[in-house]
Formats: sequence, structure tokens, C-alpha cells
Amino acid sequence: MASARAQPTFCRGNHTLSIPMELFRENRKRLCERLRSNKQVPDGAVVLLQGGEYTTRYCSDNEPLFRQESYFHWMFGVEEPDFYGALDVKTGKAILFAPKLPDSYAVWMGRLLSPDDFKMCYGVDEVYFTTDMAEKLREMKPAVLLTLHGLNTDSKNYSREAAFDGIADFKVDNKVLHPEITECRVFKSDYELDVLRYVNRISSEAHKEVMRGVRPGMYEYQAESIFQHYVYFNGGLRNMSYTCICASGDKGSVLHYGHSGAPNAKVINNGDMCLFDLGGEYYCYASDITCSFPANGKFTPEQRTIYEAVLSANRTVMRAVKPGVSWVEMHQLAERTLLEKLKQMGVLQGEVDDMMKVRLGAVFMPHGLGHFMGIDTHDVGGYPEGVERPTGAGISSLRTARVLEERMVLTIEPGCYFVDALLDAALRDENQAKFLVQEEIRKYRSFGGVRIEDDIVVTQDGMELLTCVPRTVEEIEAHMEQGKQSGQRPLPQESQKPV
Amino acid sequence: MASARAQPTFCRGNHTLSIPMELFRENRKRLCERLRSNKQVPDGAVVLLQGGEYTTRYCSDNEPLFRQESYFHWMFGVEEPDFYGALDVKTGKAILFAPKLPDSYAVWMGRLLSPDDFKMCYGVDEVYFTTDMAEKLREMKPAVLLTLHGLNTDSKNYSREAAFDGIADFKVDNKVLHPEITECRVFKSDYELDVLRYVNRISSEAHKEVMRGVRPGMYEYQAESIFQHYVYFNGGLRNMSYTCICASGDKGSVLHYGHSGAPNAKVINNGDMCLFDLGGEYYCYASDITCSFPANGKFTPEQRTIYEAVLSANRTVMRAVKPGVSWVEMHQLAERTLLEKLKQMGVLQGEVDDMMKVRLGAVFMPHGLGHFMGIDTHDVGGYPEGVERPTGAGISSLRTARVLEERMVLTIEPGCYFVDALLDAALRDENQAKFLVQEEIRKYRSFGGVRIEDDIVVTQDGMELLTCVPRTVEEIEAHMEQGKQSGQRPLPQESQKPV
Repeated sequence: MASARAQPTFCRGNHTLSIPMELFRENRKRLCERLRSNKQVPDGAVVLLQGGEYTTRYCSDNEPLFRQESYFHWMFGVEEPDFYGALDVKTGKAILFAPKLPDSYAVWMGRLLSPDDFKMCYGVDEVYFTTDMAEKLREMKPAVLLTLHGLNTDSKNYSREAAFDGIADFKVDNKVLHPEITECRVFKSDYELDVLRYVNRISSEAHKEVMRGVRPGMYEYQAESIFQHYVYFNGGLRNMSYTCICASGDKGSVLHYGHSGAPNAKVINNGDMCLFDLGGEYYCYASDITCSFPANGKFTPEQRTIYEAVLSANRTVMRAVKPGVSWVEMHQLAERTLLEKLKQMGVLQGEVDDMMKVRLGAVFMPHGLGHFMGIDTHDVGGYPEGVERPTGAGISSLRTARVLEERMVLTIEPGCYFVDALLDAALRDENQAKFLVQEEIRKYRSFGGVRIEDDIVVTQDGMELLTCVPRTVEEIEAHMEQGKQSGQRPLPQESQKPV
Repeated sequence: MASARAQPTFCRGNHTLSIPMELFRENRKRLCERLRSNKQVPDGAVVLLQGGEYTTRYCSDNEPLFRQESYFHWMFGVEEPDFYGALDVKTGKAILFAPKLPDSYAVWMGRLLSPDDFKMCYGVDEVYFTTDMAEKLREMKPAVLLTLHGLNTDSKNYSREAAFDGIADFKVDNKVLHPEITECRVFKSDYELDVLRYVNRISSEAHKEVMRGVRPGMYEYQAESIFQHYVYFNGGLRNMSYTCICASGDKGSVLHYGHSGAPNAKVINNGDMCLFDLGGEYYCYASDITCSFPANGKFTPEQRTIYEAVLSANRTVMRAVKPGVSWVEMHQLAERTLLEKLKQMGVLQGEVDDMMKVRLGAVFMPHGLGHFMGIDTHDVGGYPEGVERPTGAGISSLRTARVLEERMVLTIEPGCYFVDALLDAALRDENQAKFLVQEEIRKYRSFGGVRIEDDIVVTQDGMELLTCVPRTVEEIEAHMEQGKQSGQRPLPQESQKPV
């Protein structure tokens, strides 16, 4: 809670990670350095960002829990809505502008924080109320205000530019900032890596808790509930990084399962594979982890084969990742590994080189190998100017086509799915059909899918694995057996049903 | 899950409540009857509502879990975004218009439902894609389209009117619908009451689980986590009705504690009172329950006195509630009961009648006694035309000033808080200060507060209590002792802290 922070840190208790506000000071410093070396930025430029705003649900007075806009969070770490922030590029001076709430709000919201309180909380140089913003900005005599306007290459949405009464009095440049701050966000500082390690560790532990607790007969959402409880209770992770995907059986082939139209509401059956893509968020930093395992704790031969094919793709990529490597090539490496394994299994026939030419990999893995991760789960910066989106099924879904560099954080998430629509299309396509062993494919029609998703940081000579969950078949079976030994988790009883 | 529903029902498994789509058919029937008896509505009128839309978080591709707009939910119960719905007032024929998603979405979203699938799911008469909506509406030859436009008296926001390409071809009336549908929402059908009973029962059980699990040394949000896990795991309640308030100690006097600036992050101390205002939501129907209890399971004499004063106000109102009673008078009854008890305690002195005249009750209970509850936690219809908002501190915060009628669902939530800002103001006010026994008041300065909130339905000759939690001091102490006996809930260990 903001008012409880005597030291400028974020913390959710002694058992959680304490994050110094220095993290944001360093982010701002990095941004200033980039902007100062950009010839389009004149002396006396001031960055101006507008934070996320207070909202209500439709016309009601229901207030969804506020979550800060990601660029604003990256610069200031402010937890409350309706702020603005300014940054003097030359001096690095950071100023926050806080909304002036009516005194009467104190009864509803608690003691209202003063500008000095916020200054202490967030470790910035000055804080004023937004009512004084135009005046304070005029006093800075900025040569130009740099505002944020640019395309998010995943959503295709544009960021919302700062606006306020009186902005017409200033010279505004909305072009130069977006690519520069986006590029800063791509490379994670040591402070940021500490947070990402923490949130990954807590989310990994929560996955292990889920694997210990899952039983055939449970509903998928009950696993979601176990996960959410674990990360919040034990780690202080109030928000998830994204809507939980708890797919079992054939639902495993639905890549974005879990949304309101498919809300993890299937019963988990004996014999199902589970594909659980779950990650918590701490102080707006994400984790994104997928575990795949048999609901009953024991792999069938078919489940083991598919699982080990995907694990092989995952581990092969990990061994190859280092600075200088192309992410597109990593995607292809994962595909090739997977196709080779499917051929060994007898599901495919022919030459893997020929399969690659007709993009057969995308029939089984229609999504990209992985994406940047940070304050957004699908973090920004995947396609800066000059990096073109590759073409071709599957590979065109890649959220970045960059060459890897140190301090990039990515997911590695190869998968193998049996999607009827894609298999049917492939069987109709004479270039692809010849590689498919139809009677083998048929066996997997309701299999669902397997995805193995880890989060990594690119290091000087390779990578650091942030995720720590049981991954081999043996590790998973041993871990789940442990869960069974520790006693059946009580399932809700029929008798609880209302009469 | 929509596609799994062979019968037109909503359900989250055998241990949860099964809700027939007949609920919405009956809601629509009630609306048609009202509209047919309204002389402003011509023959051939057609109601047209627009459902909630798909959104992303700021410019990112993060998709917050979709929650239907409440009026649209009341009429159709549709779980997916981007729908429209029409209702022929004369015949009662209900038509849904579903968004036409590209075939390629099937890989990401699962098998795309056809109009026939949706017709089966939601038990409506016809379903088309929104791309065909203008044409289908034209075929109906409506005398007028009735769209929704009106003020939410809690948020002061206006509902968003349906809009679509081609609406200019129709005669549109945006005035007549809002008061009529709002009035329908005030009175709950038997089907709706069943849902409200269910969600209240599950949320009551979750409060009991929290009371069993709370220990001094825990963080407030850990109680929030226990609650959320209980209602989701055991009841299928994926959403909360509102942001959880888990206030302990002095935070109990912050009425809207729990928001992003005060996120339930205080440690719960031995000797603290807890004021936990928590309610889950099932198929968009709300519960709203507050339990107040000592963190360590044993009331101090001071805690017991304040608690029993509030409980007395709560129970006195319950005994008086029945059709024909004014809610404003119920608020005054609660205030009077509270003031009498505070006088008995020696915190106040003088005549209670005189205290009432200077609105002294609002110093200790600055909010209204309670509000309508349904698909919104603060449900609509509190101030229809002709019902004026009362004036005066506290009482002007009432979300309704109506006379009670059968099938109204309300919260009864008297409270007593020690809010520095309000006490200081009262001490400065010569009309109020004379009633305050300063040396007694001083003892309670960091007490926080007590609120006792139950949900009720007005019945033919009284009320039905939906909430079922330990309420007397003896019940609470016995229940919490049970929790202690059943073993300490493991707290996160220091050793889990990252090194």
C-alpha cells in the first residue's frame, strides 16, 4: 500500500520481493540516454506520458481493479489511476502529476496522499497536482514535449497520446518517443530481471501445486482457482498476466481457451492430457508458463511420444539460444525438431526438408515459437523499423523476427496440436497430404495438444532459464505421484448442491 | 461452456447451480408486458439492445476477461462479447445477433458456434449474424426501435445506446425503454431469487472459511485469496461482484479500501478488528456480504460493545422490513439504534432525538443503510422519476429512497466507524460536539470500524435472509475457535524470500 511505504520500495510483505523504486529511475536514465543520442531530439525536450485512467464497468459504478498502462508503469511504477509524468531529457528530472481528489474522498479512499507522500513513494524529483500541470510544464520551458504515439505490433492498436487542457501552447512531437522507449523496454535491466525471476519462481511453484492437486473428475477452472490462490496467497500476485488457459483433453487444441465463451468449464477426464497456460503478475511484471501433463499422473505411450517430441523441440532451441541467433531460425529449428520426431513416431513420412518447404510444421504448431515478455505478456518491440514480419503459415504469427541480444526476455513455447480444421485442410492439400500417415493421424484426432512454455533471458553466451517446473516425463510422474500420496484434495460434494 | 450445453441452461458442474435460460425468457416476458401497457409504446415496437464489446487493455493485446453489460445480461444471458439482441414487444419473439468471426479464429477460439448453436444455448427464437442485422430488422418492419438511454443514479453515467450501420433507416425512441426495463430489474423473479440464494450461500460459506483461516501475522490480501479460491473452486464463481475489501485495524474506517492505491496489503495484527466486505458473482448475479470479527478470534470488551451496537441496528432493521416500509425510515431506524447503543456505552451523551436532528449518526455511519442488489452489486432503479434523493449527511448517500415492495433485494449494512476526519469535524461543530464524550471517543481513534452486511429479499409479510454466517459474538468466537483447532494454516515462510 502506497501510504505504508517509508522506503521507496514496492513490497507485499516479508515473504515477497521488495522492489526498489530505483528500478524506474534506471529505466528513465536509460531512456534519457537514448533520447540524448537521437539527433531529432532538441536540447530542452521533455517527455510527457499520461497514465491509465479510472474506469467503471459500462454505465454502472462497478470499478474494475485499476492496472497501470504499461509504458507509464515502466517509467514511473505508479499504482494509482489518473496520473501524468514528465521527464526532462537533459537533466533526467522526473515529475509526477497526481489527480487532486476532493477532501471528502478521504472517507471512502483513506487518507489522501499529498504530493510529498507520492514523492516519497515513487522516488521522483517533484510531484504536483494535475491541476497545476500546465503551469509547471510552462515553467520548464520545454523546447518540445515528446508524447507517445505508435503502433503495438501485436494488437495493431495505437498507444494513446497524452492530452491536457493547455497542450496547444506547447510544441509537441509524437513521433520520436515511441520507438525509443519501446526499444528500451526490450532490454531488461538487472532490477527488472530480479522481478521477472521472482514472478516466474512463484508461478512455477503454483504450477507444481496444480500438478499435485489435479484429479480426474475435477473441473478445469478448479485448477485455475488453485493456481490463482497459490500465487496470490504465497507471492502477493494479485493479477494474472493473462486469462488462465486450463485446457484438458481435446480442448488442448484450442489455443486461446479460457475466454468467456470457453471458460475452463469442462470436466477433466481420466486419460486426458492437461495443457495449462498460467502466469501471475507482480508489480505489473509478467510470467507466462505452460505445463502439459496427463490428468491421472501417468503418460500413455501416445502421450509420452507427443510430449517428448515437444520437449525435444523446447530443449533443442534452448541449447541454441544466444546473442546473434535469429528468432526466425529458432522457430524453424523447433519445427524441424518436431517434424523429425513425428516422423520417427510414424505419424509423418518423407523427407523433413521437403516438409519444411510446404510449411507442414504449421499444421501441428500454428503459432509462433515465442515472444518478448516484460510488463506486457506479449511485450513490445518485436518489429522495430527495419525488421520485417516473415511470411508463411505459422512463422508469420511470430511476434518478433529479431536477432537475439543480451537482456532480451522471451518465451520458448513449442507445441504440437491436433486441430481438426488444420488437419483436414492439410489432407486436402496435395503438397502436404503426402507426408501425413492418415491411419496414425486418426488416432490423435481428439488428443488435444501439448505445449511446453518456459521463460528465458538471453545472456552473454547463452540463456538463463527463469521457469522451474518438472519437465521430463519422469519428473512429472514423480511429482504427481507425490501429490497423490499427500492425500486427495477434497472435491466439492453433490450434497452442496442447492435443493 | 456454451458449446457443452445441450439443454438451455448455464452450469459450472454438478456441484454448482444449474440455471435455465427460461430465466431470461421470463425477464423478457415481464418487460414486454410492461411495455405493452405503456401508452407511449406503439404497436410494432421492437426493443434493440447492444451487448458489451470485446476490449483490450490500453494499446496492448491483453484481453481482460469479458463480462456482459448488465441490461443485456438481464435480457439474454449471453456470455460472449459483441452481440446485439432484439425483442418484439407484441409477440415476445427474441432474436440474437452474433458477431461473424473469421473461420481462421477456430484455431484460437475453438469451434466457432453457428447461429443454431447459439439458439440452442440461449433459448431464443432466432439467431443471425450481426452482418445481417440491418436486413433482418427491416424485415420486422418495426414501428419504432426502442433503444436504451438513461442515467445510472449511482455512477451518474448514461447507458450506451445501441448503434449500427443502417440505424438511420429506422424510427428510434431512446426514452421509453430505460425506466421500464430498470423497473423490471428492481423486482426479482423466482428464477433470479434462486441464483441470488445460491451465490449468497457460496459467498457465506467462503466468509466462514476466511474466518477459520485468518491469523494475526497474515496479510489482508491472503484473506482475499482464501475467499476467491473458495467461491471459485467450490461454487464456480469466477468473478467477484466488486473489488474485495479486506480491512484490518484502523483500515476498517476506509470505506472503499482494497482499491489499487490501498490494496489490502497491511499485515493483520493481534488485537485488530477485521472488516471483510467480500462477495462472489455467478452468471453475473451478485452477492455483497460484510463480516466483522477480531483477528485473534476473541472480542475485547470494546470490540464487543461496538460490534453488538451495529448488530443491534442490523437486526432491528430486519425485524421492521416488510412491504410498505420506507427505506429512508429504515436508515433512520438503524442510526437511532446505533446512537442509543453508543449512548449506553458512554461514548455519546444527551438526547438521541436531538442527535438525530443534527445528523450525528452520519459521523459514525457516513454511508447509506443499504442498496438494491442484482446483476449489479449496486443495482439499478433506486431513484425512478418521482422519488427524490433525501438531503442530510449520510442519508443523502442512500442509493434508494423507495418504499419497500415484495421481490426487492437489498443489502442491510449498518456500520460504525471511527474516521478521524469526521470526528474532528464533529468536534469543531458546536451543534454536534456537545454530544461527544471526548475522552471515550479518544479510546476508539484507531479502532477502525465494524460493518455487518446481509443480503435480503422483501417477502409478502417481511423478508428472507439470504446470508448465512456467524453473527453473534458467541457464534463468531465459536466458529473461529473451530478454525484454530483444525490446525494452523501454513503461512508463507521467510525462507521463500528470494536471495
